[in-house]
Amino acid sequence: MTDIPQDHPRYLSLLTRERIVEGVKVGITSMQGLIAQGRGECFDYLLGEKTHQFATESERVAAAMLILAEHPIISVNGNTAALVPEQMIRLSEIVSASLEVNLFHRTDERVNRIIDHLMNNGASEVLGGKGDANLPLSHARGIVDKNGIFSADVVLVPLEDGDRCETLVGMGKKVITIDLNPLSRTSRTATVSIVDNVVRALDVIADAALGMQDWDREQLVKLVESYDNKVNLKMSLDAINENLRNMANEVL
Amino acid sequence: MTDIPQDHPRYLSLLTRERIVEGVKVGITSMQGLIAQGRGECFDYLLGEKTHQFATESERVAAAMLILAEHPIISVNGNTAALVPEQMIRLSEIVSASLEVNLFHRTDERVNRIIDHLMNNGASEVLGGKGDANLPLSHARGIVDKNGIFSADVVLVPLEDGDRCETLVGMGKKVITIDLNPLSRTSRTATVSIVDNVVRALDVIADAALGMQDWDREQLVKLVESYDNKVNLKMSLDAINENLRNMANEVL
Repeated sequence: MTDIPQDHPRYLSLLTRERIVEGVKVGITSMQGLIAQGRGECFDYLLGEKTHQFATESERVAAAMLILAEHPIISVNGNTAALVPEQMIRLSEIVSASLEVNLFHRTDERVNRIIDHLMNNGASEVLGGKGDANLPLSHARGIVDKNGIFSADVVLVPLEDGDRCETLVGMGKKVITIDLNPLSRTSRTATVSIVDNVVRALDVIADAALGMQDWDREQLVKLVESYDNKVNLKMSLDAINENLRNMANEVL
Repeated sequence: MTDIPQDHPRYLSLLTRERIVEGVKVGITSMQGLIAQGRGECFDYLLGEKTHQFATESERVAAAMLILAEHPIISVNGNTAALVPEQMIRLSEIVSASLEVNLFHRTDERVNRIIDHLMNNGASEVLGGKGDANLPLSHARGIVDKNGIFSADVVLVPLEDGDRCETLVGMGKKVITIDLNPLSRTSRTATVSIVDNVVRALDVIADAALGMQDWDREQLVKLVESYDNKVNLKMSLDAINENLRNMANEVL
């Protein structure tokens, strides 16, 4: 990795960049994933690089939805594999969800490399290597595992493609997304749209799930049913607008 | 490169992306530069992907400032080398400025590759290969040429690092930046902050300079002195806020 001066004011953000660049170097992240990372950075910056109240709310609903699910899947791509392997494994264990590698720029080699990477990080099983079912989508990005995403009732898809998100929702699945752009097609289409950075969001979901271990089914259902995704997205946009105004007042 | 149809509504944006990925492949752009590109894409999207009136204004002031300079330098990095080599060379000729390669993630190999790339694109001379002076900055990013940036009175630094921008201003230089984020430390610190996409901005500056060929010194000085960078930055923020509100009304 490049030596980043520790006195640089954006040290942590630059370090996260290094992690994803490392992902490209070891062949688990695509170059297009790097550009996507940059777009996410920008929206995170507009949100003040923090988890807002509206995000904590959608993250709690996501936790309840995952606990209630019969067959939940956490979809892993090249960016999340590089950035948050431990957090995804931890969440999958807490809510008893399976991990499945699912790539937009799919090659069998990269799928297998990511599976190995997750196993090396402590995962006990990772789906996605079979690719024995197809979502109704053109292109290799429709390939999934039959006993994985194809038959899941709830799918958590951090950093998802808008087309695929629409397709999963169209198949009747509940889709939870983590996407920093509240205006993306993914955010507008998902059942629960978490507008937060994936490096913060996964642990908030996991901790919320831990806090719900004594809850009965009725309580979980009530939380999920009380949630309005559109209202939540509007709050995230308001937060961006307010933050922009505050930053402007502070610095200009 | 991938074949992009010229009638595609996002033609310029997609072409820009192709060019920068190509830059990584031939070793002139860093992978971190790809992330920075994604960040820029996001801000350009928030600005509606067009050159606003406030940008045209700062671009005209930049042109006047470069013409008035005794020793102007145009700083080139891995992203601008991949994206806009011809535009930088054209501008350098019109305002009689030298080109100097100056990298955040510096290696002599990449500096020389970028120098070759600019020479192949028609530059007659490119500084940055000597690296015989140091800005007061930790890290290799402080390395510059003594007869280049180190002794310049005006520096145009598209896509600059905030730390280095501050340092250059602290050394008493006039710094013109091109940065799509109006709130970045670079934009807040620069003498003239151009909030526009570098693929559009350089030609606007060059054309403005051509239009000033008959101007006398007094006219140029008057234009520069009438300019208020803070007011200009506020206009760019207002544009982003307005655009976000419009997009939200359309889609939510």
